[in-house]
Amino acid sequence: MPVEIKPKVHNFSAGPCVLPQQVFQQAAQAVLDWDGSGLSILEVSHRSKPFVEVMEKTRALAKELLGAPDHYQVVFLGGGASMGFHMVPQNFMKVGGKGAYANTGTWAKRAIKEAQLLGNATVVGSSEDKNFNYIPKGFSVPNDADYFHFTSNNTIYGTQYKAFPKSPVPLICDMSSDIYSRPVNVADFAMIYAGAQKNMGPAGATMYLFDPNALGKTGRTLSPMMDLANHAAKESMYNTPPVFPVYVIMLTLEWLKHNGGVAAAEKRNQAKADLLYNAIDRLPIFQGVTAKEDRSAMNATFLLKNSALEPAFDEQWKAAGISGIRGHRSVGGYRASMYNALPLESVQALVDVMEEFAKKNG
Amino acid sequence: MPVEIKPKVHNFSAGPCVLPQQVFQQAAQAVLDWDGSGLSILEVSHRSKPFVEVMEKTRALAKELLGAPDHYQVVFLGGGASMGFHMVPQNFMKVGGKGAYANTGTWAKRAIKEAQLLGNATVVGSSEDKNFNYIPKGFSVPNDADYFHFTSNNTIYGTQYKAFPKSPVPLICDMSSDIYSRPVNVADFAMIYAGAQKNMGPAGATMYLFDPNALGKTGRTLSPMMDLANHAAKESMYNTPPVFPVYVIMLTLEWLKHNGGVAAAEKRNQAKADLLYNAIDRLPIFQGVTAKEDRSAMNATFLLKNSALEPAFDEQWKAAGISGIRGHRSVGGYRASMYNALPLESVQALVDVMEEFAKKNG
Repeated sequence: MPVEIKPKVHNFSAGPCVLPQQVFQQAAQAVLDWDGSGLSILEVSHRSKPFVEVMEKTRALAKELLGAPDHYQVVFLGGGASMGFHMVPQNFMKVGGKGAYANTGTWAKRAIKEAQLLGNATVVGSSEDKNFNYIPKGFSVPNDADYFHFTSNNTIYGTQYKAFPKSPVPLICDMSSDIYSRPVNVADFAMIYAGAQKNMGPAGATMYLFDPNALGKTGRTLSPMMDLANHAAKESMYNTPPVFPVYVIMLTLEWLKHNGGVAAAEKRNQAKADLLYNAIDRLPIFQGVTAKEDRSAMNATFLLKNSALEPAFDEQWKAAGISGIRGHRSVGGYRASMYNALPLESVQALVDVMEEFAKKNG
Repeated sequence: MPVEIKPKVHNFSAGPCVLPQQVFQQAAQAVLDWDGSGLSILEVSHRSKPFVEVMEKTRALAKELLGAPDHYQVVFLGGGASMGFHMVPQNFMKVGGKGAYANTGTWAKRAIKEAQLLGNATVVGSSEDKNFNYIPKGFSVPNDADYFHFTSNNTIYGTQYKAFPKSPVPLICDMSSDIYSRPVNVADFAMIYAGAQKNMGPAGATMYLFDPNALGKTGRTLSPMMDLANHAAKESMYNTPPVFPVYVIMLTLEWLKHNGGVAAAEKRNQAKADLLYNAIDRLPIFQGVTAKEDRSAMNATFLLKNSALEPAFDEQWKAAGISGIRGHRSVGGYRASMYNALPLESVQALVDVMEEFAKKNG
């Protein structure tokens, strides 16, 4: 591993987002001349031996880092998690069947909409009554649903499941914004899927990690492009994969492995989240947006109690080299995204600005 | 524009393939620090002003370089042209309707298969009788088809339409392997689509250029991810786009514009094709695979008449720094792909090897 390089900007972007600086260096080198081949990673055939090795290594690391059961399959496809919302009912909903969903915000709703287009979707739990500022609990999933789908972390609102819901039917999770941030018992899930552009890599690839035994039960005739079993049988190379995004995912997962894997990531992420949420709670001019027990370690949402102070606060954090903390328009205020690659120092820089601002404006 | 830099390897790969060396330099710099922002292009939000500008510029260049009518729309999506095969019937085939197809090889067949899954596909012309070594001509397209689909260039076999077929119904073309290689009258087409990874950029994005008036006529309820009108309405940002592939497409299209656009590209491509095909015809140990009038300017397929000479020939071209000319398994022999960014010098290097080899083994 190269020596750790500090980022020039404190990048709190909600995604695409900060990745390890080492990964940027390695990726830039590969764009110029990949491993001394004289070729750019952007011009190599996806069927060439070196890239086939990248794909295999990426797929293996993806499973290894989550401790996935051996028989689970993993593929990396284009289209984003939004395509995943469509793939879920395509691959798991029986013809005339139904999917059960928890509605925890914008992305969950998009997933529900896709299921409604193909069949029936039943919403078994929702936090829409309070603009999704908490995680619904205590709901039960009907036995006759084909699957139960939930969103483990809600980027826009800043909520996160701390314990995963129990389900009598196959469990499917969109983990786009907190995958690889903490240990997960993969065997509990029929499928976990995630857009790469938070903890895994750049935009342009989506991971599908699934139990192949959970597939092929719908009675649906699938397009080969929609068929996860087809993509798995072709080792994620049914058609040209997103070569460079997959390569950067490999680099990012290697970085994670060299830094202690998901268990160590969880500790670092908790330390960052504690630092920021403590400041939000301690400084009287700020307030958190979400229920405390459901606070996301990835995306902390908070407000200035007096929103008239926002322009002055914005000036301060921008001057401190902080980027990307304006809240999503559907929540307002601020959102600090603290994905795996964001250093603790960046959170400290934000907390320093908040403290100084609170002192002046308290 | 930076000074032209010569590639270190003569990269004849069928795709992903050679791109301009300047593009590799610019892309590598952007991975390290994009335009002096202190951020990598891989970590910027797709909603940030600089990236929204990239997307808009890329969409504008895509139309400008082909002289597309003003009202045409262009979007860049993940999934590859194989997803395009699926999008075509989704967006253009009426419920209970049919698509007409020309069958010119592997990719055409995959497109036909997708149409068959959603409705009816009628094959109006085919060259399957001769392993796709020519372009079918003189066929007629039925008036009651919802569209006619063809593949302008067949990467595997080395055939290319020199004149586009006439059609009484909306014309749809998969131009993945020769887009931006020559002028095209876009107004003749309801849609042109193309995977980026030949003349446009790296793998991971697919361009859809279409007449919006041709959409919305199917009676089909589409998933928002399948709906080209939705993607166009959202300016190719309905969901997170493949950020880096789109950025490299912008760089590649800028390079093309600075180098005279598609008219100049066509001249350069014809000069390269003439140089190679002349050698194939002149040197008695070699022979072309396809009908002469249908020879692709992008992918030249040829054989050694005595296949026992292949190992010796392979040694020679590899020693000359040539890469990627082994033919596809379904044709055998050799395939030299000469996309826009391949310099004439690379073709000359191959011809030199062929001549020397012919002299020794003639």
